[in-house]
Amino acid sequence: MADAKSGELMEKIVSLCKRKGFIFQSSEIYGGLNGFWDYGPLGADLKRNVKEAWWNRMTRMRDDIAGLDATIIMHPRIWKASGHVDTFTDPMVDCKTCKGRFRADQVHEIPCPQKPSKMVCECHGEKTEARPFNLMFETTVGPIRSDDNIAYLRPETAQAIFVQFKNVLETARQKVPFGIAQVGKAFRNEVTPRNFTFRSREFEQMELEFFIKPDEAVEAICGSVAVPSAPGHPGEPRPDWGWKMWHQYWVEERIRFYEEIGLPRTTLEEYWQKPAELAHYARATVDLLFKFPFGTQELEGIAARSDFDLSQHQRFCGKPMTVFDEELKAAWPRLDAPKQESLKQQYLQSRLNYLVRAGEEKEKAEAQAKADAEALGKGYYVPHVIEPSAGVDRLTLALLCNAYSEDQAPDEKGKMETRIVMRLHPRIAPVKVAVFPLLKNKPELVRKALEVRDLLRPHMPVFYDEAGAIGRRYRRQDEGGTPFGITVDFDTLGEKGPDLKDTVTLRERDSMRQERVRIADLPSILMDKIR
Amino acid sequence: MADAKSGELMEKIVSLCKRKGFIFQSSEIYGGLNGFWDYGPLGADLKRNVKEAWWNRMTRMRDDIAGLDATIIMHPRIWKASGHVDTFTDPMVDCKTCKGRFRADQVHEIPCPQKPSKMVCECHGEKTEARPFNLMFETTVGPIRSDDNIAYLRPETAQAIFVQFKNVLETARQKVPFGIAQVGKAFRNEVTPRNFTFRSREFEQMELEFFIKPDEAVEAICGSVAVPSAPGHPGEPRPDWGWKMWHQYWVEERIRFYEEIGLPRTTLEEYWQKPAELAHYARATVDLLFKFPFGTQELEGIAARSDFDLSQHQRFCGKPMTVFDEELKAAWPRLDAPKQESLKQQYLQSRLNYLVRAGEEKEKAEAQAKADAEALGKGYYVPHVIEPSAGVDRLTLALLCNAYSEDQAPDEKGKMETRIVMRLHPRIAPVKVAVFPLLKNKPELVRKALEVRDLLRPHMPVFYDEAGAIGRRYRRQDEGGTPFGITVDFDTLGEKGPDLKDTVTLRERDSMRQERVRIADLPSILMDKIR
Repeated sequence: MADAKSGELMEKIVSLCKRKGFIFQSSEIYGGLNGFWDYGPLGADLKRNVKEAWWNRMTRMRDDIAGLDATIIMHPRIWKASGHVDTFTDPMVDCKTCKGRFRADQVHEIPCPQKPSKMVCECHGEKTEARPFNLMFETTVGPIRSDDNIAYLRPETAQAIFVQFKNVLETARQKVPFGIAQVGKAFRNEVTPRNFTFRSREFEQMELEFFIKPDEAVEAICGSVAVPSAPGHPGEPRPDWGWKMWHQYWVEERIRFYEEIGLPRTTLEEYWQKPAELAHYARATVDLLFKFPFGTQELEGIAARSDFDLSQHQRFCGKPMTVFDEELKAAWPRLDAPKQESLKQQYLQSRLNYLVRAGEEKEKAEAQAKADAEALGKGYYVPHVIEPSAGVDRLTLALLCNAYSEDQAPDEKGKMETRIVMRLHPRIAPVKVAVFPLLKNKPELVRKALEVRDLLRPHMPVFYDEAGAIGRRYRRQDEGGTPFGITVDFDTLGEKGPDLKDTVTLRERDSMRQERVRIADLPSILMDKIR
Repeated sequence: MADAKSGELMEKIVSLCKRKGFIFQSSEIYGGLNGFWDYGPLGADLKRNVKEAWWNRMTRMRDDIAGLDATIIMHPRIWKASGHVDTFTDPMVDCKTCKGRFRADQVHEIPCPQKPSKMVCECHGEKTEARPFNLMFETTVGPIRSDDNIAYLRPETAQAIFVQFKNVLETARQKVPFGIAQVGKAFRNEVTPRNFTFRSREFEQMELEFFIKPDEAVEAICGSVAVPSAPGHPGEPRPDWGWKMWHQYWVEERIRFYEEIGLPRTTLEEYWQKPAELAHYARATVDLLFKFPFGTQELEGIAARSDFDLSQHQRFCGKPMTVFDEELKAAWPRLDAPKQESLKQQYLQSRLNYLVRAGEEKEKAEAQAKADAEALGKGYYVPHVIEPSAGVDRLTLALLCNAYSEDQAPDEKGKMETRIVMRLHPRIAPVKVAVFPLLKNKPELVRKALEVRDLLRPHMPVFYDEAGAIGRRYRRQDEGGTPFGITVDFDTLGEKGPDLKDTVTLRERDSMRQERVRIADLPSILMDKIR
C-alpha cells in the first residue's frame, strides 16, 4: 500500500507530466474521460522512443523475429477461440437503492459511478447477485446493427499474431524457433481505471510470441532437452533448448532491455506465479514488477503458454496450425522403437490434456491426440509459445517515476534552490540536446546557435531556446529530461582568442558538469552518448 | 475508370503484397473481415518508415511544430462540436424485399451486404426512403450500457489536436504561428470498403493542424498581408503571410515530402476544390491525388479551415480557445483610428459569419462578434488553421503501386526472364540491405557474411539469407524492395590475392549494377544512400 509520502511523490509526478507536456487528461476541456490519457509533445516522443527501442531490439537486431501490424477490430470468432468472449469478465453487482454498478470484490473501496465524487457506494443498499461483466468494448461493423455484426476492440494484441502465424511463417522465410512481434493499441473497459496511466481503458502493448518446438521434437532431434542449470541469462540460443530454457532466456532478455533504457535491475522484481495462479494452459509465468510510488506493480508478463493458442485457433477456424519440421522428420527414423514410442506417448498425453480441457469430447479427443502423435513422427506439430507481453504506457510511467528526482542547485544569484530533474536515459529522452545562445539580443550569438541546431538536427531531436536567463533555460530542460545542453557564448565567437573560437559549453543534465567542446565534434560526441 | 490492364496490374500488386508479406487480409483464417487489412513483416516496416519520415519532417526537423498522441476514444461531445454526430452520414435505403441495406447513391453498383457474392441488390425490390447512417463506430464506456455512456471511435485524428490546443500551446513554449502533429488510427464504418487498402474501415492518418494569425492580426502587425504572387513554393515563412500564403506553403511542403520518399511530382495531381465543393467553413482545399491503377484518387487534403474548429470547441466546452498575441497588442495602438476601425469591422464580419452559420441566434451572435472584435484590439483572437491531412494506408499503397515494375533480367543460366522489382525509395524500403554468403556450406563465407551483417545492423535493417542460388536470393530481395545486396565470395576471403581481400560486391536493385567495395566502407556508403 502506498503511504502518504509516496502519494505526495505521485502527485508531483502527475503535476510535472501535465506542466511539461508529457501527459494530459484525454478530452480535458470537456471534463475528461475516466481511464483515457493523451500524450503531449514530450510524452509522445518518450513513448515513441520506448516503442522504437523495443521494436529495434526485437525485429531489427535479430534474424529470428518478424514484425506484424494488425487491425484493432478483428473477426469476432477470434475472441471466442481465445476465451475472451466467455471468460474475460469482472463479477459485478448492482445496488438496488442507488442503481450504481460495482465490482463485486470492490464494493466498499471504489468510487460510485453514479456519484463519482463519493469514494464508496454510500447508500449501502441491498446488492444483486454478482454477474459477469465482459471487459471488451463492443461495436458493430457494417450498416446493420445486429448480433451478427458485433465486433470487439481487441483487448490484447497477441491474438492477431496467432491468427496471422501461417501467413508470417510463409512470407518471412522463418523456421521454428522464431517469433512475431507487434506493437499496438488495446482496449479494456476497466470498471475502475486508476493510478494515473497505469490502469487505463485504452493502452498500448508490445507483445512477442516466440514459437518453439515441443520438447518431444527437441528430444527427437537432439537426443536430449536442455533445462536451466543456474539462474541468470543462459546465453545464445541452442537447438537443444526446451521450453524452460527459452522461458528463462526471454525473462533475462527482457530484464536486459529494461536495464538498457534506464530501469536498473534493482528497480524491478521478478514474481514467479505459483501453480495455483497459472492459467490452465500456462506452464510458467514470470511477472516483471516495478516499484511504482503507488505500489509494486506489473510491467510485463513472460508466459510459457504451451501450444494452447495455436491449437485453439486450429479448432475454431478449422485450418491446420501445424508446421512441418524437416529436422524432426529426418531425425525420427534414426530413433530406436522404444524411444519413438515414449516420445509419441508423451506427446499424445500433452495433446490429450489440451483437447480435454478445451472441451473436446473424450472419444474425439483421444482419436485426435493419437493422430497428432502419429503426425509428430512425420515431422508435424503445433508450435509452443513463449510470450513476453509488455505495457507501453506502464513502462512509460515507470520511466517517468524512476526519472523524477529533486536535488539542490544554485540559482542565478548563487543561492541554493530545489532543482527538479527528470533523469531519463539519453536513449529514450524525448529531446536529446537543447541549444541556447547566451543572449537573445546578440544576432551573432543567435546565428551561431542556429547553426549548431541545424548541424545536430539531422542526427537527433534538438530543442532551441533563446528565452529567459540561461539558468532558467537549463532548469526547463532538466524538468523535461533533456540530457544535454549546449550554450553558445562570446568565447564561441572568438572574443577570448582563437583557441576557444567555435567551441561551446556542453552541459550534462544530472551532474550539471560543463565541458568545452569543439562544435565540429558535437555530432559524434553526442551520438556516442545517446546510442 | 480503371481498364482491364489496370485491373490486371492491381491484381499483381495485391498478389505480391500477400506473397511477400506486405499486406494480409485481417482475420484471414476466419474468412476475413471486409474493410480491415493487416500489415505483414515487410508492410509493417514500410508503414513505420512512412510515418517516421512524416513525423521527423514535421516535428523533429522544425521548431514550430509539436507532437501529440491522443486516445482513439474521446469525450462524445467532441463529435457534436465537430459536426460528426449530426452530419457524418451516408444516405441509406433498405430493400423491402431482400431486407438488404444500401447506400442510396450506389443502389445498383454495390455488393448486397446480405449476399456479399452478388454485386447488386438482385431482387430489385421496393426501397425505403433514404435515411442518414452515421459512419462512426459506436461503443459504450463503463460498466453501464446506456445512451449516456455512448462513445465513438474517432473518425479522424484532427479533433484531438483542437481539443488539446491550449495544453500544447502552454507546455511546448510555442507561439502562433505553430502546428501540432499527430499520427494515429481512425475508424469509419464505410458502407462499401473497396480498392484494397485504399478505402478501409480502420486506417491511419497523419494530420497537422497549423495555427496561424487571422489576416486582420497580420495586417495590424505588419501593415499589410502578403498573398501568393506566383505558383510554387513561397520559401521560408515570413511574419506578413496571410492564410493564402500559408496554404500555398503547405501544399508545396507536402509535395516536397512525397518527392523525398519516392513519389515524383508527375505521379501526383493537384485538385483545387471549387467553391461549391468546399465545406462551409473552408476557405480553400487542395487535394493531392495519386494515379492508382484503379483511378486517380486522393492521398491528402490540405484545407484552409478558417477559425471554425477552435471556435466550435470554444462554444461547446465553454472555455476560451483564444490566444494572447503580444505583437498584436503592441502594434494596435500604433494604428490610426480608421485603420483600427476597418480591421475591427472586417474581423467582426468574419466572426459574425461563423457564429450565424454555427446556429447562434442573431442577437447573441452580433453581441459576441462585437466582443470578439474589441478583444482583437487587445491582442486576443481564435487562431485560424491550415490542415494538411494525409492517409498512411493510402500513401503506403501509392508507394507500393508506384514501386511495382517488371523488367527483363538473365536467370542463372543467362536466359532472359521477367523480373519483378519493387522500386521503393531507399529511405522507406523496409529492408535496406541483404547480405549473402555466396555458398551456404562454406563456413568461412558464412562467418564473414555474418560479420558484415553485424557490422551493418546497428545502422539499418539488414536481411541475412543463405538459402538457394545467389540469383534466386537477389530476386527475392528485388520483390521485397530491398535496394542493396551484398555478396561475400571467395575474393572476400583473399583467395584472389590481398587486393580483393575484405571486399564484397555491392549490388544496386534497380540497375542491377555491381561494384566491389571494402567492407569497412560499407556503413558510410550505405548510410549516404538511404538517408
